Amino acid sequence: MSHQESLTAYIAAFVSELVLSGITDVVVSPGSRSTPMAMVIAEHPDLKLHIHVDERSAAFFALGIAKASNRPVAILCTSGTAAANYYPAIVEARYARVPLLVLTADRPHELRNVGAPQAIDQIHLYGHHVKWFSEMALPEKNDEVIRYARTVCARAAAIATQAPAGPVHLNFPFREPLIPKLNDELFHLTERPNGYVNVLNGDVTIDDEQFKAIALLLEENEKGIIVCGNIGDKDFAKNVTKLAETLNYPILVDPLSQLRSGKHNQEHIIEAYDTFLRNEDAKNNLKPDIVIRFGAMPVSKALTIFLKENHNALQFVIDSGGGWRDPAALTTNMIYCKESTFCKKLASSVERKSTTSFLDSWKRVNQLTKDHMGMIRDAAELSEAKLFSQLADILPEGATLFVGNSMPIRDLDSFFLNNDKSITIMANRGANGIDGTVSTALGAALYLKPLYLVVGDLTFFHDLNGLLAAKLHEIDIQILVINNNGGGIFSFLPQSEHSTHFELLFGTPIDLDFEYAVKMYNGNFTRIKDWDHFYSVMNNAKTPGLNVFELVTNREKNTEEHREFWRSVSQEISNFVNGEHEWT
Amino acid sequence: MSHQESLTAYIAAFVSELVLSGITDVVVSPGSRSTPMAMVIAEHPDLKLHIHVDERSAAFFALGIAKASNRPVAILCTSGTAAANYYPAIVEARYARVPLLVLTADRPHELRNVGAPQAIDQIHLYGHHVKWFSEMALPEKNDEVIRYARTVCARAAAIATQAPAGPVHLNFPFREPLIPKLNDELFHLTERPNGYVNVLNGDVTIDDEQFKAIALLLEENEKGIIVCGNIGDKDFAKNVTKLAETLNYPILVDPLSQLRSGKHNQEHIIEAYDTFLRNEDAKNNLKPDIVIRFGAMPVSKALTIFLKENHNALQFVIDSGGGWRDPAALTTNMIYCKESTFCKKLASSVERKSTTSFLDSWKRVNQLTKDHMGMIRDAAELSEAKLFSQLADILPEGATLFVGNSMPIRDLDSFFLNNDKSITIMANRGANGIDGTVSTALGAALYLKPLYLVVGDLTFFHDLNGLLAAKLHEIDIQILVINNNGGGIFSFLPQSEHSTHFELLFGTPIDLDFEYAVKMYNGNFTRIKDWDHFYSVMNNAKTPGLNVFELVTNREKNTEEHREFWRSVSQEISNFVNGEHEWT
Repeated sequence: MSHQESLTAYIAAFVSELVLSGITDVVVSPGSRSTPMAMVIAEHPDLKLHIHVDERSAAFFALGIAKASNRPVAILCTSGTAAANYYPAIVEARYARVPLLVLTADRPHELRNVGAPQAIDQIHLYGHHVKWFSEMALPEKNDEVIRYARTVCARAAAIATQAPAGPVHLNFPFREPLIPKLNDELFHLTERPNGYVNVLNGDVTIDDEQFKAIALLLEENEKGIIVCGNIGDKDFAKNVTKLAETLNYPILVDPLSQLRSGKHNQEHIIEAYDTFLRNEDAKNNLKPDIVIRFGAMPVSKALTIFLKENHNALQFVIDSGGGWRDPAALTTNMIYCKESTFCKKLASSVERKSTTSFLDSWKRVNQLTKDHMGMIRDAAELSEAKLFSQLADILPEGATLFVGNSMPIRDLDSFFLNNDKSITIMANRGANGIDGTVSTALGAALYLKPLYLVVGDLTFFHDLNGLLAAKLHEIDIQILVINNNGGGIFSFLPQSEHSTHFELLFGTPIDLDFEYAVKMYNGNFTRIKDWDHFYSVMNNAKTPGLNVFELVTNREKNTEEHREFWRSVSQEISNFVNGEHEWT
Repeated sequence: MSHQESLTAYIAAFVSELVLSGITDVVVSPGSRSTPMAMVIAEHPDLKLHIHVDERSAAFFALGIAKASNRPVAILCTSGTAAANYYPAIVEARYARVPLLVLTADRPHELRNVGAPQAIDQIHLYGHHVKWFSEMALPEKNDEVIRYARTVCARAAAIATQAPAGPVHLNFPFREPLIPKLNDELFHLTERPNGYVNVLNGDVTIDDEQFKAIALLLEENEKGIIVCGNIGDKDFAKNVTKLAETLNYPILVDPLSQLRSGKHNQEHIIEAYDTFLRNEDAKNNLKPDIVIRFGAMPVSKALTIFLKENHNALQFVIDSGGGWRDPAALTTNMIYCKESTFCKKLASSVERKSTTSFLDSWKRVNQLTKDHMGMIRDAAELSEAKLFSQLADILPEGATLFVGNSMPIRDLDSFFLNNDKSITIMANRGANGIDGTVSTALGAALYLKPLYLVVGDLTFFHDLNGLLAAKLHEIDIQILVINNNGGGIFSFLPQSEHSTHFELLFGTPIDLDFEYAVKMYNGNFTRIKDWDHFYSVMNNAKTPGLNVFELVTNREKNTEEHREFWRSVSQEISNFVNGEHEWT
């Protein structure tokens, strides 16, 4: 058995199993040591191979594909620091629960830790941030090793997708020569050979008695709220709205819950809470006895504070992924159960309640806040708040809206209101970094069209290299860059009161004219002049390829606008509450 | 004791100790959790604070400063994926033996692993790739904790600098509020208080008896060679040339040994070996019985193969850093001793030898190869080989030449000949990645002027974000980008014989017009038209700021030119050997 035959058979078995495990996309960065894997992947008719030169962007690009396609995505790079560049996206995938198969090529054992070029210690390279690590055997062609290669691949894909989904790392030592023997017979099997493993991932659920006990508890309490964060369960919206109907509880919907847009029942949806939960009168009148929380922690700090203040409420946290999403330690009942199963089973266990004054109070203050949003929409100057308040109107039916971290996700939370369009909202909220956002959005744009990305200038800058994918793979994307020349979020933080080092350490203006970068990547760049200009370009934002629209705003004015709005809504709510004497 | 006082006193003690431990430069990336450390660092009159938005580039920038200044450099970032972006530079620092103090801010314990924003598991975040990790105590102001903060800092700096130098990671949990109390009293101590620790790092050496035994062995063997790789010891050049004089051994000098340029005795210097060791006749006539090797593995593959073929030779590997730099397992005597001490002591232990025919053979074939270099210099078209063959002439006295990995370092090795200018050669040869090169060079350019960077287009692209430092900090640099539109090195590898996927997977043309990027960073961009144009702009390359010169070359022609040169020199050497019958 020649070295080349062993190499080829082993890798072909692994790559066939990638496809049989449901993988359709592989993001490959160029390199020498990864040659055999890259060449065999390129041969497989059912794999889409995406080349990306910068491994950091490559891994985020894969993350975006995985999020958008709901399938694990494989990434492949050569040995050395190339693999270390994957780290930020791997950490994000871990916390955002996104399945990635990280395939790193490595020097064989005799070339490790002996000063050989591009040889670093890749064993457990990503530490605790992958769900599983396996150092692979050297390629051999015998039944046992071939079975092993197939099994590890099936297992890795299963681990990556089982709740909580996440990244898995397989490290492949390859000896020279690195060229596989390509021929038409490589993938002659269209399905798994008989006698090979198939993996089924089950979901967690609690039993019927436990549901009944919870139902009983809820029936005693009218003052309940449901809180929905980011959640990766397609059936969730339908089931949670049904549960809310049955319980007649308001649902506080984080933008990433996918409940602010869509055709589901919207009667119980509350979305303006980030604004009205800043008012003490409102908070005093909306105290819950029960909180049922799903998904990741919501973006809203006002909501987090409200929940902390109501720490005597019973708080049910439902998590299919076995996590512990509770930074303030408020959970009274941690329930490991698939979220949509929980909603369905509970709704059928509980007696349907009639509408309550508690629900009504939530709805009235929510509506009052939304009615007040006009003052944001009336702004004559380009403004961040106004942009987000209009996005639901402007985006076409079926669009995907990807938002950057820091200010955009918060403004989205505050100003993007409930609507019946089918707008999918995405963001990198695993670790909330500003890194890799452009690449993640571009990866998602392969599967979700049309896709709009809204990011600040620092976020756009951080992943400028990601734009190469738009050029190489001719991806259609509309990017809105809110350019306030620096870190806008710091103007809202106590740091802003210390002027000595503020601009140096926090404001960090970088004064870049992004038109240059966009042109380098063959994109179209438009600097928005005013709102009319904005509406007109958005109406025509159907140009294929990379399209970047820049909105220049001012950090200080932005802070002032937000604060003025909050003050004004707060005043209105207090007037309303105090004027009526009886709130409900 | 208020929270703010504790926070301030603790961090001020730590930051004072940074300065007392010899640190002068800190690279800070903007963030919230790192606020107290950033603000206190900004206050210290003896610390230079460099802001860099992209943490990946920031860490490489720090690496460059550390290499150029021969001092450890601190880097500071906020919690979350920001810290993961440091990983590539940390890995490079570890293998390149460069001292870095990695300071990461973290959420306090109660906000870890509970779904809090920007909270990732930062304990041992960099795994085996740092020399030391310490999870820091929460800030307190009492004698014990203040002593602790000072001591950990002194210890971290000592560990980072002690051989082998490398990165150290300190993780700082900070609770809100994050604003320290700044005042003029923060750093009232200009030296360490009495009773505080001082650290002295010693060097390893072997004893006099052991030197005598080695001296005896060497005196019996005329056919010895000295091989010098990358080494971070300022006294080394002087001492190793003295040893070579005494032994009358040729010294094969890797470009990173700093022995190809300078005022040291050049009589024993052999630098054209990468070319002539491709010829069998030469190799047959130059077989050593003794090899004395210093520093990292040399770049030359021809040399590596030659050493492998001569595996019966006694091979002494001298390493002050306790490593095992020996990918082919050829070492017969591993000697852990400071390199310049070894040279000095051995030279004084050994009897001075008269010149030998063996040395003469090395010198003759070296000269013959250099004489043949004319055929490279005669090229009319822009060529990579010719560029490197001329650099020693073109660069001004005292210049620093930073070269990218992949092809540039290899071409430098092949074509950059011995000269008596003081040209410092730098490269990232820890893990030999193409990542972070622009940033490392920019960091070095803060201390070494004038600095010239020569990189390929993929390397330049990979770290385009690094150019922000040139703009923000007004750094003077001359960058030569060899643009062959892709990965030129693959044309020399077996991959190039497989045309099916070659351009997709290995050639990877990205077709970028870098003029856009350079202009975005306020730089000057010049596309070189021909050699006359090149000489004229190089003569005037004294413009301050960012200056980028692009040389467009062709990957196929480049490979052909190299191969033609090697064939031709090889023919010449064989003619010479066979014509003379007697080689020496």
